[in-house]
Amino acid sequence: MEIRLEPAVLAGFRFAGVAAGLRSEPGRKDLGIIVADAPVSAAGVFTTSRIKAAPVLVAQDHLRSGRLQAIAANSGSANCFTGKAGIRLARDSCAALASAVGCEIELVAPCSTGVIGHLYDLEKYRAGIANAAATLKPEGLTDFANAIMTTDTHPKLASTTAGLGGTRITIAGCAKGAGMIEPRMATMLAFIVTDAAVRPPQLRTVLKNVLPRSFNAITVDGDMSTNDTLLLMASGAAGNRALSGRDLQKLEKAIGDVAATLGRELVRDGEGASKLVTIEVRGARSEADASKIARSIANSPLVKTAFFGCDPNFGRIAMAAGKAGVEFDPERLEVSLAGIKIASRGALEVEALAEAAARMKEREFALTLDLKMGKASARVITCDLSYDYVKINAEYTT
Amino acid sequence: MEIRLEPAVLAGFRFAGVAAGLRSEPGRKDLGIIVADAPVSAAGVFTTSRIKAAPVLVAQDHLRSGRLQAIAANSGSANCFTGKAGIRLARDSCAALASAVGCEIELVAPCSTGVIGHLYDLEKYRAGIANAAATLKPEGLTDFANAIMTTDTHPKLASTTAGLGGTRITIAGCAKGAGMIEPRMATMLAFIVTDAAVRPPQLRTVLKNVLPRSFNAITVDGDMSTNDTLLLMASGAAGNRALSGRDLQKLEKAIGDVAATLGRELVRDGEGASKLVTIEVRGARSEADASKIARSIANSPLVKTAFFGCDPNFGRIAMAAGKAGVEFDPERLEVSLAGIKIASRGALEVEALAEAAARMKEREFALTLDLKMGKASARVITCDLSYDYVKINAEYTT
Repeated sequence: MEIRLEPAVLAGFRFAGVAAGLRSEPGRKDLGIIVADAPVSAAGVFTTSRIKAAPVLVAQDHLRSGRLQAIAANSGSANCFTGKAGIRLARDSCAALASAVGCEIELVAPCSTGVIGHLYDLEKYRAGIANAAATLKPEGLTDFANAIMTTDTHPKLASTTAGLGGTRITIAGCAKGAGMIEPRMATMLAFIVTDAAVRPPQLRTVLKNVLPRSFNAITVDGDMSTNDTLLLMASGAAGNRALSGRDLQKLEKAIGDVAATLGRELVRDGEGASKLVTIEVRGARSEADASKIARSIANSPLVKTAFFGCDPNFGRIAMAAGKAGVEFDPERLEVSLAGIKIASRGALEVEALAEAAARMKEREFALTLDLKMGKASARVITCDLSYDYVKINAEYTT
Repeated sequence: MEIRLEPAVLAGFRFAGVAAGLRSEPGRKDLGIIVADAPVSAAGVFTTSRIKAAPVLVAQDHLRSGRLQAIAANSGSANCFTGKAGIRLARDSCAALASAVGCEIELVAPCSTGVIGHLYDLEKYRAGIANAAATLKPEGLTDFANAIMTTDTHPKLASTTAGLGGTRITIAGCAKGAGMIEPRMATMLAFIVTDAAVRPPQLRTVLKNVLPRSFNAITVDGDMSTNDTLLLMASGAAGNRALSGRDLQKLEKAIGDVAATLGRELVRDGEGASKLVTIEVRGARSEADASKIARSIANSPLVKTAFFGCDPNFGRIAMAAGKAGVEFDPERLEVSLAGIKIASRGALEVEALAEAAARMKEREFALTLDLKMGKASARVITCDLSYDYVKINAEYTT
């Protein structure tokens, strides 16, 4: 199955994205909606922050039934740290879309991203919903993806197809990210829809299984947002038979590939990122151990600035691995950077460093640590820490 | 007791710092020694990294007796990830100083900082030790402090005095830091000496007690080094009577003040730092809870870039507090930035932000969160994340 970095048309879904005036830049798209033809299976994961935005609380509540018919997502305001007024605003926002679509309020999930501590204007929002509902179309996913961007430089889209018991099904998704990205169970905002028929409990399991290798295996700056949301909807319009065994695995693999691709694109477009680096830790005693070390390296400012400087700085890699709180034997450690072995058996391979430095000039490379302690492994995708990360974040008010 | 940012002369100790040619910059001081007139009480804390430098392993071993007579500290090479050859080098380095001073090898603690994965030249080191031993003097602490610097822009020194049962005792210390600073039990390299008479077990307790509010309450980039070492020596030459009760507390307070001052100076001179920010979390259920939130804020790249941009970005503060894994009620949270209340009772005080932004132009300010959940509190001192942090670390090989 090929993953394409573009939208797709799926039976049972329509999309729209409009400029509702919720952002300070006039004319910029800031409100997107996804609408299914009828109530469909849905699953979601959300930020584990103690400070959850109002739309997160409302969406969690609405998702308990395992069904949704519509999603409304806006940029320009996170509707977070807004107290009871924020909850009321999120519910009124659901009501606006429910009324436009003709469904129950509880079948709408709200999502917001942008400045924290501010309420958006409900009248502008309602007018935007009306405008969006009037422009819904099956080809509208790119408009939706554009409406949810903040510091992203371009919309992130991915799609694929799979054959399930003779029926061809389609999966499409989009995401926004750029900063505040180290989801512990979701990313900033991501949406994946499929026309496959999947029961809600199956969809929840699929979501749980694809997370560790997609949105939970990426980081930009180690910061987790108050609004992180990932929603998955399945319309069933493709008409496949009830899923089990190999077909369910195929669906999970296809959704996982779309999720991993969106995650990767989020890091590639991370704030100020000029390098995409895959950190792989192998030979660990457990996946948890491998993941801890990979994450410690992926989030170390000293390692990330070395990536930016194309500096094969083994010392910082060793430092970040060592501080992860995982037992391993430095004497067995083997490290490859951009395909070049730079350390093994407790010693640096000094003569290999120049070649590694040259290869680090590429836009993408891998850093691999083999602990030689066991058989478990884990991967985290990260980016470098550049002048532009500082520039973007010293000048932008979240 | 006043803390002075300068060295002091203490009965029983002499210091030196020389250029031994261990660094690439010719003529730059890179080898320092501290020598006591006789074996004295000593205590130390070290990095908890899984990758410990050879000098850390040797110093830990030598400190088991609770006594030291001399310390040798070099910059230019960390002697880390250097295998058995590194251990041999650290021991031979101790032997060189032991022979120059006329003490047992086990009474010498070695410390190194600089590039990881390289051995320094033992012959140059030995010549440097001979030179340093010939230039030892009671006024030599500044020379020593200069010899251990890496990306530091100036040496960090602090001293004070205290009256213990009618005897005036003196405490002096120095430290080097700048980057890779989030000690979990020590800093990069720090040395504190006193002429007070203290038994080794008392000295160990004092060290343990002063850490949480000094070197463990600072961060530059959240990265912990492989070589972090803090050593404390007490010559007893002041001739105070055996310490207990209030006198012991007075000594602990004085040593704690010197340690806290050195820690603060490390952050002030953090790589690229232009702001010194004290993060205080109050009203927590436990000190551990308060510390987790303070640390999460202090290490967030998004918060640190906002400090650099003088941006009173409540959203990022809320994000970093929320992701710390501590239960609290956002509706009770009260936040003050640079002395201005910017949020309380679940709502942002929008009209206060301009004044807070203006006050953030100062070089030092505080960020205070009151959780209103309990009575515990914690403080962490941090700095901003600037273009210069990226510049220094994209261009320097550790």
